[in-house]
Amino acid sequence: MKVRKMGEQALLQRLQAFCPAEVIGDDAAILAPQPGMALVVTTDVLVDGVHFSDRTTAPEDAGWRAAAANLSDLAAMGANPIGLTVGLGLSGEVTVEWVERLYHGLVECLQTYNTVIVGGDVVRSPVTTIAITALGEAPPQRLIRRSHAKPDQAILATGWHGASRAGLELLLHPETSHHPLTPTEQAFFVQAHQRPIPRLDVLPLLWRGEATLIAGMDSSDGLADAVLQICRASGVGAELERSQLPIPPGLVNWVGEKVAIEWTLYGGEDFELVLCLPFDLAEKLAGQLGKGAAIVGKTTVEPDIWLLDANGIVPRDRLTLEQSFQHFS
Amino acid sequence: MKVRKMGEQALLQRLQAFCPAEVIGDDAAILAPQPGMALVVTTDVLVDGVHFSDRTTAPEDAGWRAAAANLSDLAAMGANPIGLTVGLGLSGEVTVEWVERLYHGLVECLQTYNTVIVGGDVVRSPVTTIAITALGEAPPQRLIRRSHAKPDQAILATGWHGASRAGLELLLHPETSHHPLTPTEQAFFVQAHQRPIPRLDVLPLLWRGEATLIAGMDSSDGLADAVLQICRASGVGAELERSQLPIPPGLVNWVGEKVAIEWTLYGGEDFELVLCLPFDLAEKLAGQLGKGAAIVGKTTVEPDIWLLDANGIVPRDRLTLEQSFQHFS
Repeated sequence: MKVRKMGEQALLQRLQAFCPAEVIGDDAAILAPQPGMALVVTTDVLVDGVHFSDRTTAPEDAGWRAAAANLSDLAAMGANPIGLTVGLGLSGEVTVEWVERLYHGLVECLQTYNTVIVGGDVVRSPVTTIAITALGEAPPQRLIRRSHAKPDQAILATGWHGASRAGLELLLHPETSHHPLTPTEQAFFVQAHQRPIPRLDVLPLLWRGEATLIAGMDSSDGLADAVLQICRASGVGAELERSQLPIPPGLVNWVGEKVAIEWTLYGGEDFELVLCLPFDLAEKLAGQLGKGAAIVGKTTVEPDIWLLDANGIVPRDRLTLEQSFQHFS
Repeated sequence: MKVRKMGEQALLQRLQAFCPAEVIGDDAAILAPQPGMALVVTTDVLVDGVHFSDRTTAPEDAGWRAAAANLSDLAAMGANPIGLTVGLGLSGEVTVEWVERLYHGLVECLQTYNTVIVGGDVVRSPVTTIAITALGEAPPQRLIRRSHAKPDQAILATGWHGASRAGLELLLHPETSHHPLTPTEQAFFVQAHQRPIPRLDVLPLLWRGEATLIAGMDSSDGLADAVLQICRASGVGAELERSQLPIPPGLVNWVGEKVAIEWTLYGGEDFELVLCLPFDLAEKLAGQLGKGAAIVGKTTVEPDIWLLDANGIVPRDRLTLEQSFQHFS
């Protein structure tokens, strides 16, 4: 059934089946944050044809990705999720089934991280739009900020980078069937794109030792962008080691080293964390995390950001923000 | 300058000038709710051409209305606002000036109620979309719920109803210049539509006496809809007195009694509160509020909802939900 046949209120009521009854308010949801915690709030707007598309993404996957992107923003601040609101603008041509599948994907991701949809809005719109606001909480002294980095700290990536970009390539060009990827590598890339994992699992590992301020952000806009944003906010520079980049297994063999490095640095949407912290803590963490987690370089006093290889600076490899920025089209 | 000439990140950074520096996080905003308070969260999506239009609404007014609608949802739950996020989907043809004027209107409304924009997102979209999430807090025992009404309580409307609908009429048909309205009445109607007042001022008046559970919601979808929703959620009925309806001064003289009553019951977007509470408290409150605040009827054991006149039930005036519901088109 197309949503145009159903009233907005009726559809909203049907979608309340996806919310736990105890948080459903009337005009608003009701939550009980823990006393003394900082409340962390993040908002994302996703537009059909710009941020998701039926061509590469089933509605369940669009839902999962939307939830994962917002949970990743919370993880990047050191916060655990307490709930999420979903505002939907729906074209009348969208089916109720599509909306319910989207919600299934949202809830599937949220359940994995012990959180819930706490409310929302449904309106008609010429273009399907998903507006998500996620709420999280963190002890104020444990908030992760971009501005917390100091010189001579380790830069840690919590996992492989470039896998989501590789997965997109496989989804967009399925006819590229002569690639040398193993079925496992192929499945990993597609999953990285369709079902990214927000790294909330990293947070408890960070706080086992003594308290230290940690800098970080997520790599939703790419590993290079994350390093650049942290450096800019903290007034430091960075040296990245080309040999230490977390290039996923199989990628160089498929697309060559040059493209593999480009996707790893600039591909984006890997939703890993990029953290700056003391070397001893970073080494311990990389060991605990495994699966591509690596110290990719270190912060420096000098504010430029360089990519180094075994012979020193890679020619013309001073990183810039330009490659990682999106523009209105 | 059109927003297409400006990167999304650049525009988002420019809009941060409208947020207080202390809440700007990196990937998320940081708030400190008061310990022990319930956190109340509400979300609205507004779409160009559906919920606002340059024809009747300047961007400042669209901003004010968007903020006011969300603050009204908080007031309807008994909550005071602590912050609001703004997710924007923008067509590339929108000017930066339009976006800044929208933000001016948002901030002007929020400042009036001592709250702030705490974060947001800006993306490109074929149709301009405003997604707002407002956060508020309330002592848990003072939450206003639709389900709290009991039989034989007063039904209080906190102000005039139908004024916003009348204002829309004046804006849509400015050529209707033979109306008998005074300039004051005319200005009141237009202002009710363009700059609605969320009734957060009512909350402190509610809690001066002893604690009592109060039922209520806002009248954004009309006075009749609010009464019906409360009755349905509480399992009660209602009798409304036609003579007590808060019809704004000048309206009957302009459009006649029949249309005036229709706009008062079904016009919507007045953003007043409709509350069910003991008669003594309601009488005191109506006196304190003035400006159209009135006890419009009472709740009943019998679950139907009737509109009564001096001779008893008005023929065919059993209220139904149908007139107040919106449908996808």
